[in-house]
Amino acid sequence: MANSKYEYVKGFEQNDTLLPQTWIVIRVDGRAFTRFSQVHGFEKPNDMQALLLMNECAKAVLEDISDVVFCYGVSDEYSFVLRRTCTLYQRRASKLISLVVSLFSASYAMKWTQFFPETELQYAATFDGRAVCYPSESILRDYLSWRQVDCHINNQYNTCFWKLVGSGMSTAEAQNTLKGTTADVKNNLLFEKFKINYNNIPPIFRKGSIVYRKQMDEVVKVEKGEVIKRLRAHIVVEHEDIIHDGFWTAHSYILAVGS
Amino acid sequence: MANSKYEYVKGFEQNDTLLPQTWIVIRVDGRAFTRFSQVHGFEKPNDMQALLLMNECAKAVLEDISDVVFCYGVSDEYSFVLRRTCTLYQRRASKLISLVVSLFSASYAMKWTQFFPETELQYAATFDGRAVCYPSESILRDYLSWRQVDCHINNQYNTCFWKLVGSGMSTAEAQNTLKGTTADVKNNLLFEKFKINYNNIPPIFRKGSIVYRKQMDEVVKVEKGEVIKRLRAHIVVEHEDIIHDGFWTAHSYILAVGS
Amino acid sequence: MANSKYEYVKGFEQNDTLLPQTWIVIRVDGRAFTRFSQVHGFEKPNDMQALLLMNECAKAVLEDISDVVFCYGVSDEYSFVLRRTCTLYQRRASKLISLVVSLFSASYAMKWTQFFPETELQYAATFDGRAVCYPSESILRDYLSWRQVDCHINNQYNTCFWKLVGSGMSTAEAQNTLKGTTADVKNNLLFEKFKINYNNIPPIFRKGSIVYRKQMDEVVKVEKGEVIKRLRAHIVVEHEDIIHDGFWTAHSYILAVGS
Amino acid sequence: MANSKYEYVKGFEQNDTLLPQTWIVIRVDGRAFTRFSQVHGFEKPNDMQALLLMNECAKAVLEDISDVVFCYGVSDEYSFVLRRTCTLYQRRASKLISLVVSLFSASYAMKWTQFFPETELQYAATFDGRAVCYPSESILRDYLSWRQVDCHINNQYNTCFWKLVGSGMSTAEAQNTLKGTTADVKNNLLFEKFKINYNNIPPIFRKGSIVYRKQMDEVVKVEKGEVIKRLRAHIVVEHEDIIHDGFWTAHSYILAVGS
Repeated sequence: MANSKYEYVKGFEQNDTLLPQTWIVIRVDGRAFTRFSQVHGFEKPNDMQALLLMNECAKAVLEDISDVVFCYGVSDEYSFVLRRTCTLYQRRASKLISLVVSLFSASYAMKWTQFFPETELQYAATFDGRAVCYPSESILRDYLSWRQVDCHINNQYNTCFWKLVGSGMSTAEAQNTLKGTTADVKNNLLFEKFKINYNNIPPIFRKGSIVYRKQMDEVVKVEKGEVIKRLRAHIVVEHEDIIHDGFWTAHSYILAVGS
Repeated sequence: MANSKYEYVKGFEQNDTLLPQTWIVIRVDGRAFTRFSQVHGFEKPNDMQALLLMNECAKAVLEDISDVVFCYGVSDEYSFVLRRTCTLYQRRASKLISLVVSLFSASYAMKWTQFFPETELQYAATFDGRAVCYPSESILRDYLSWRQVDCHINNQYNTCFWKLVGSGMSTAEAQNTLKGTTADVKNNLLFEKFKINYNNIPPIFRKGSIVYRKQMDEVVKVEKGEVIKRLRAHIVVEHEDIIHDGFWTAHSYILAVGS
Repeated sequence: MANSKYEYVKGFEQNDTLLPQTWIVIRVDGRAFTRFSQVHGFEKPNDMQALLLMNECAKAVLEDISDVVFCYGVSDEYSFVLRRTCTLYQRRASKLISLVVSLFSASYAMKWTQFFPETELQYAATFDGRAVCYPSESILRDYLSWRQVDCHINNQYNTCFWKLVGSGMSTAEAQNTLKGTTADVKNNLLFEKFKINYNNIPPIFRKGSIVYRKQMDEVVKVEKGEVIKRLRAHIVVEHEDIIHDGFWTAHSYILAVGS
Repeated sequence: MANSKYEYVKGFEQNDTLLPQTWIVIRVDGRAFTRFSQVHGFEKPNDMQALLLMNECAKAVLEDISDVVFCYGVSDEYSFVLRRTCTLYQRRASKLISLVVSLFSASYAMKWTQFFPETELQYAATFDGRAVCYPSESILRDYLSWRQVDCHINNQYNTCFWKLVGSGMSTAEAQNTLKGTTADVKNNLLFEKFKINYNNIPPIFRKGSIVYRKQMDEVVKVEKGEVIKRLRAHIVVEHEDIIHDGFWTAHSYILAVGS
């Protein structure tokens, strides 16, 4: 029973190779996470354990795929930056997207109990994925800024919203109160009404999370009273500003790796 | 802090809509499953529990996505047929692929213990995915036949191979013995040397698995001595021949649904 | 001076293969033809010579590309149907589009004098092109119907519009008069105000033009008083209804060729 | 007769937008030009009139499309560089390719008599086209270098080949003589056997042609004995080296325009 008769069907597969020498960003987004977070009793507006679980899944992706050089996460989404020179799977979009989504989704299920020891996972959390190419480092940086600004805008709004609702407003009243307000007005509202200094809110909520291989000087040994150090990379999770140049200047090796 | 300055980066996302009115097949393939199956002690050439777990994951996909009308699985791969008229996610390839892969991968992790209660999952099983469009039912059928013929060819070879190895041959010797042999020769070898009638091997190994919503007459109630039946659909896992017309004639509603 | 150093740039070319076994329609559209027709004094609403030139260009395409089985043209656009089984240029969209556009555009320039012997071609008429795949004959037929209905709607409107303008109305007044009118109202207007029976307008204006290889019985010779005929194909230009089944039933070989 | 019933077919058109902020190169290649050049008696290995006609067509494209900032032509091919920031036709590949091909092909037919006043155009010269994106100026430069190196390699070979054939060798003998020879050997052969200094061959043959808008200081007027100049751009055809930095440094405005 030769298979040649049917093998022609392979010819229907279409090429989805991503343009070489561009930065690839693969973003995963939680599917129907409003419901998922309600079913699993996530805290509003931010659930620390849920965010830590997301970060752990991102680390699993970074550990597994050496071409991933930087990750940025906020709420139920995570962006993965693949180096410009990446040739994994010949840069086929479907392969790259599915690999990241598969690793992320499976990790979420596997690590759940570690972060929610007392809450049973009712059903699989699922994520969709997409791949976008950015032709220059500058545009890639704008992408990351876009996500972090979004994090800030949403978090500020949600913090106000849930405080107002917690103080007795209906959700409709809270929406009305916040409609069209500037950042300043929201900050004042938080401070005057709830004695909350927005800048004191944990950075993980305000800035989101970044995951990358941080190069650090490590003491290898002490020889004849002399400290011998070596540069080593460790995966870290931080909550830094990635909009301004500071972070990128201090860690210029991140986007330079292999490019 | 308006986000408009950075929002232009959204414009780099490229459209990957699949051609309307074609059958979409999304196939997931285990990534590095040779190693995964060794680490977790899968039986050779087929591990029944591993196959049953795969089938359970396929059911989870079928249950979640109503546009999936048929699934076919063999070894560490599973194909999902989405109806011709599917408009889920506007038929965007990356969305559809990632949804299926995410569901499948998360389910695999969640349901592992159920099928391998005594083996700890060492690391996440991951799957890549792809989407292919087939313009007609006839070509779609050829795709499914291709996979089932492949199942047969591989299973027959692997059955012989592992029997020879089990009988003391080195893997190289077993390969040499089987090199260029026809199906008949392999069947004879199994029968004469190992008293195995290939056709008695469990159908799940020889045919792979199909998952679909089977329409069955169900007794709803008995009224005044009369049996009232209604057509109801139940998700089933079977191991039928899907190459010849028999199955498709008997279940013509499968590909007719919504098309 | 080896070229290998630079040859990597070939890797940036992306695959644009069209899905196999689908009907390919390549449509060319005149670019800025409103201006082109004014500069060259085309008659309004239809210039017979301009349409005949378009038809001649379509014939040149049909003659050159054997995979083109049917053409439909109206105004400054022409659609070319490539058979389902076409594998020319491995079905690469850019190649197929550019070949048709190149042939059409060059033919237009070359044949201009033949149709406009007294008008000098002021500048090159140019056409853009696109390729669209249709998975079934039925949808392909709908595509062609779409274009012919469009021809009818536009021609009826334009006939009324230019008659009104010719009778002294401003273009704004003519637009107002026709705004929201049904086909019946337009036909009545033509008949009552201008004594024009719409159905007597030349079919080339009302139906557009079709070009195809028509199979005809041809007398090859007369032998011993017996007429010997053979089926031969000749390229013809006609102005038939292609919306209803009649034409396609009578010429079923057109879409059957090579499929 | 509403058209809405058929308008759904528009939904089958697939998006082919090119990645933003990348350099677009559209290359046209003569189709079956070996035959075309024989039929029209082109000189071997280079026909000056044919090349001048190609250049004139390139100028027509540059004049018409303001986003084209540079063109490079050799033999029967021409490459057009569209600026990185080009948004013409929303960067749809099929539109951009077909526009360039249409302009080029129509111009070739229209301008033929001007360059070949005594040779009738037997049939339309046709060109296929493709679009490729390059993410950085450096890779774009490599693309152009690739084409110019190719021009050199081919021209040197062809010059030798046709000289050998002209001296009485069969084409097979000439091929054998040249097989595997280095550039130096070929130059020596030309010099010793045919008294040809390769570097004295017209640059248009050795370097190909470039077309661009050259910025030049132009005397606008002389006022009170003072010469008033203004920077003006004129389309020029030149035959410069575009591999080394010299040209690009001297004309840095070419790739800087609008980017």
